[in-house]
Amino acid sequence: MTKNDYREELDTPAVLVDLTVLKENIAAMAAFAQKHGLKLRPHVKSHKTREIAELQLAAGATGLTVAKLDEAEAMVAAGFKDILIAYELIGEVKLRRLLDLTRRAYLSVLIDSEIGARQLSAAAASQGLEIPCLIEIDSGLGRTGVRPGQPAVELARAVKSLPGLKLTGLLTHAGHAYGAKNQTELNRIAQFEAESLLQTARLLEEEGWSGLALSVGSTPTVRISGTFPGITEIRPGNYVFNDATQIALGVAREEECALTVLTTVISRPAPDRAVVDAGAKTLALDRGAHGTALLNGYGLVKNHPEYMIERLSEEHGILALPPNSPLQVGDRLEVIPNHACPVVNLTDYLYIVEQGKVTGQWRVIARGGVR
Amino acid sequence: MTKNDYREELDTPAVLVDLTVLKENIAAMAAFAQKHGLKLRPHVKSHKTREIAELQLAAGATGLTVAKLDEAEAMVAAGFKDILIAYELIGEVKLRRLLDLTRRAYLSVLIDSEIGARQLSAAAASQGLEIPCLIEIDSGLGRTGVRPGQPAVELARAVKSLPGLKLTGLLTHAGHAYGAKNQTELNRIAQFEAESLLQTARLLEEEGWSGLALSVGSTPTVRISGTFPGITEIRPGNYVFNDATQIALGVAREEECALTVLTTVISRPAPDRAVVDAGAKTLALDRGAHGTALLNGYGLVKNHPEYMIERLSEEHGILALPPNSPLQVGDRLEVIPNHACPVVNLTDYLYIVEQGKVTGQWRVIARGGVR
Repeated sequence: MTKNDYREELDTPAVLVDLTVLKENIAAMAAFAQKHGLKLRPHVKSHKTREIAELQLAAGATGLTVAKLDEAEAMVAAGFKDILIAYELIGEVKLRRLLDLTRRAYLSVLIDSEIGARQLSAAAASQGLEIPCLIEIDSGLGRTGVRPGQPAVELARAVKSLPGLKLTGLLTHAGHAYGAKNQTELNRIAQFEAESLLQTARLLEEEGWSGLALSVGSTPTVRISGTFPGITEIRPGNYVFNDATQIALGVAREEECALTVLTTVISRPAPDRAVVDAGAKTLALDRGAHGTALLNGYGLVKNHPEYMIERLSEEHGILALPPNSPLQVGDRLEVIPNHACPVVNLTDYLYIVEQGKVTGQWRVIARGGVR
Repeated sequence: MTKNDYREELDTPAVLVDLTVLKENIAAMAAFAQKHGLKLRPHVKSHKTREIAELQLAAGATGLTVAKLDEAEAMVAAGFKDILIAYELIGEVKLRRLLDLTRRAYLSVLIDSEIGARQLSAAAASQGLEIPCLIEIDSGLGRTGVRPGQPAVELARAVKSLPGLKLTGLLTHAGHAYGAKNQTELNRIAQFEAESLLQTARLLEEEGWSGLALSVGSTPTVRISGTFPGITEIRPGNYVFNDATQIALGVAREEECALTVLTTVISRPAPDRAVVDAGAKTLALDRGAHGTALLNGYGLVKNHPEYMIERLSEEHGILALPPNSPLQVGDRLEVIPNHACPVVNLTDYLYIVEQGKVTGQWRVIARGGVR
């Protein structure tokens, strides 16, 4: 089913992607990477779409990053050959799936514990395979990863002693940048994102390691951390779309947001209230994964800063309106979501818009939970 | 692909449903409805699954409720014949889809505005059809719906004057019960849920209406609002599974929760922290749709009240642990989510567990965004 209707004839809620803005975002990040001699390995979790990954590679990306094995399987099935799974894979079933996949593409994975490294080593060695892996460093997010410096060096030594593993780099994701309250804090977080890898790499060089990839991530930080000499790779994801969070952080402007949710006013029950057909099962409930305090409501209504998306239930968005709002049942609005990535994960299709016309329908092939 | 493994051999994250508990929950609500002479029209948005709808009908449910047209289409395709779409359907494309569907099943829909009623009337009348509709009453949630009493009477008059519409009842959903701080408040909300319909129905009887369905909803309220003489129908959804929100409200006990998320510890980066492979794209970010202040974290770790799910990022759940916790990389945990409904919407399969064994895999057929 391909739709070639005007945007007004689409049913709602629908996730729209403005192709012109998307391509500009892809080109701008590719130009940044090229200027600084960085490998660009964009994170697929934001779009989960074959067509967008192809645009990224065509613009100069050297490979893809994914958040989990399901995404890697979907992208390998779509024909992609160089994929970093930015995740610790634990457990027999998962390692069996990983090893199956390594016969079809170049895959690398993360480790942050000796238990995890031993599991991976045993699985790979039993099949005579060598798995490329990167040590994850915690540069302040407080999620996964070993601390920079000595703990990472110790894990590298363990990896060296294990068969079936090849240490190819160090990786970190300063996701706490999303909680930055101002540019100064964002700068500090991004600088430490780079420094945590550079410092650890210096220690590893003293132990004889060389040629390790030093990979930093996140759309808000890469334009800072990526400029540090020695950093070799960036893994931004959200930049293809941008969203209300990136606007709140000062990382993107509204006109750089490629993804919107088209929604219809279904109820106008009170003078100060309208209800639209995009709720939490479309817009997601994100208020900033790591504490973006600057967001107001559950998304920005495009061209209508006076409307506030105050609450979401599963299939309803409840808008607070100013006095005398002319909004009527049947009117349509476009919403820039707080966080584009989970919105993509909640739909099967992205509707591609060019000059106000829907010109394509791209399938979200790596949506969560698909087996 | 059907899995017949033991639970320990499933890959994670996986959504598990304990069949014994599920059947007990279904039987208990059916018994309540029968005792009070109520029609039971369970809400499918919670499970979106053919097998569970069949169990509900086999236990005595008289039809199904859905939250949107996509769910209705999926359930009609699965063979179900009596479906209430508890939603206002607005716009040409949606009404065309609705009318197509009415040729294959008995469907009723909601109205809460004259604009909406006129759209529906025009579409139905143009095809010589008559669409059963219910007026939605706002009993305090502050979402969709007209106010009880005179505003509803006026909308009923408009419906009477329009061709192609048949008013079959009044409906309300006291979803703000999820924000109740104690049993007294919950009682008050549920009482008004019933009273708002009964009061409006008395006014409509004076205008000559009779035989209208009076339909109340929500798992926390139906056992109160359903006992009011004159109420004819209840539409609970979540009761099949229950979740941490129902526990917090005192509506269910932990052993009455049928749905859990099986997850693996992938990282143990600090003495007081573990990270599991169930994040916001599995557990959802719900903290209670209408303000459940009683929830602590992002779900309950079964048998481990000492573990707190403190933060979620997309694919990571971050657990705060007490001192000296023995939790290791590779350990598995089961989480009762805060809100079961969005968890189902994030997966393609429910793994059915009987006596600790996985005995089936049920497909989520009405997942959001599937076209």
